[in-house]
Amino acid sequence: MAHYKMTVAYDGTAYHGFQIQENALTIQHFLEKALAALYGTCIRVEAAGRTDAGVHARGQVVNYCAPSLVPEAQLPAALNGLLPKDILVIGAKQVEESFSARRDARAKIYSYTIDRGPFPDVLCRRYAWHISRPLDLQAMQKAATYLEGKHDFRAFQAAGSRVRTTVRTLFSLKLTVEGQFISFGFNGDGFLYKMVRNITGTLVEVGLGRLSDQDITPILLAGNRKQAGATAPARGLCLEKVIY
Amino acid sequence: MAHYKMTVAYDGTAYHGFQIQENALTIQHFLEKALAALYGTCIRVEAAGRTDAGVHARGQVVNYCAPSLVPEAQLPAALNGLLPKDILVIGAKQVEESFSARRDARAKIYSYTIDRGPFPDVLCRRYAWHISRPLDLQAMQKAATYLEGKHDFRAFQAAGSRVRTTVRTLFSLKLTVEGQFISFGFNGDGFLYKMVRNITGTLVEVGLGRLSDQDITPILLAGNRKQAGATAPARGLCLEKVIY
Repeated sequence: MAHYKMTVAYDGTAYHGFQIQENALTIQHFLEKALAALYGTCIRVEAAGRTDAGVHARGQVVNYCAPSLVPEAQLPAALNGLLPKDILVIGAKQVEESFSARRDARAKIYSYTIDRGPFPDVLCRRYAWHISRPLDLQAMQKAATYLEGKHDFRAFQAAGSRVRTTVRTLFSLKLTVEGQFISFGFNGDGFLYKMVRNITGTLVEVGLGRLSDQDITPILLAGNRKQAGATAPARGLCLEKVIY
Repeated sequence: MAHYKMTVAYDGTAYHGFQIQENALTIQHFLEKALAALYGTCIRVEAAGRTDAGVHARGQVVNYCAPSLVPEAQLPAALNGLLPKDILVIGAKQVEESFSARRDARAKIYSYTIDRGPFPDVLCRRYAWHISRPLDLQAMQKAATYLEGKHDFRAFQAAGSRVRTTVRTLFSLKLTVEGQFISFGFNGDGFLYKMVRNITGTLVEVGLGRLSDQDITPILLAGNRKQAGATAPARGLCLEKVIY
């Protein structure tokens, strides 16, 4: 028996999210199918975090237990030959049996990309939320600073979620501008369900002038999902990296 | 009757090139279908340049003659509602009857993107040529300078092409580096069939050390397609802009 940590990148456009489900194409389904073909037996993977339908990853991490040893340097090429082109194993490493991609994650970095062009960049339409109305970037950046740190992020959790605690630490939330695109980089110790997309939707409301940066702290304190902005579309979101 | 110049962007991945053909999905087919739906009659478009199967455009230009006047500001939205999502009209302008997108083009700008990462960036795999072996960028940049200017580019023309003259002027050919990507920007008064992809393939041979930058001028002078490098894949190529 050998235990592996594997880094996986995918274009989520064609998939119903990471997690396996009946009658739907998921990343996990194809990963486990490729592993089954490679090892000749059923293998279950555990991911650092489940990404939703249409969400992308450049650095999702999974772990699995294999019945036999395949040299870690050979794993990516062996599995990529068995995977669809929009799912790619980009790293593999043998780990201790105790390693868990989910529990051992110390931080996750997500990016959310917005296309501000008058028309969407046609080559990026699957990876960015197109907003042609003018956005006040200074106000968005200022609003973002109020979200950094340790807070109860209940207001930004998808309605109906149930978790033990809704307190999370956002180590940093930075806006970068690159041509017609802007991107938010979220670095945090954990994220509630749809938290990144709900925060992004709220920051866009600030950018459009419908909310003020001064509204952010009251929204956090009230903890009411209805006061925050709408959920940003999945396609702009990417799980960039998981830190252990 | 009204004459229009229209700027069109497309993700060429799913199409058999720009030019209409029997039993194949092409950009021209969908553009003319949308125009027919809008105007209620057959309309033919003429493009600045035909792009091959799998090649993209951020700034293709077409012209057409319409039986009735539609305000130019309304054309993009009206047509985009009728087009597939990976074809986008991003500008329209009424022009003189004499305007020809093809004949009046003074220069075209193409980009060719190479992904140098150890693994391809999964979100850019449709828009870049992935080369994981190390490339000598200095040698590639130097080789590119020998191609700038007015030359007989016969060595870089697809075999079997027939044109009046194979002399073209490459105003500039610049390499830019951005993270794991490099991109060549070709600005020229005209391009022979597959010239950008054949030049790129040759520059990659230089980058890999199979050719030297000192080989470029002899290849140009010999005019022999077989001495130049292989044709780079379509997916890295994008028609960025046509200048009038």
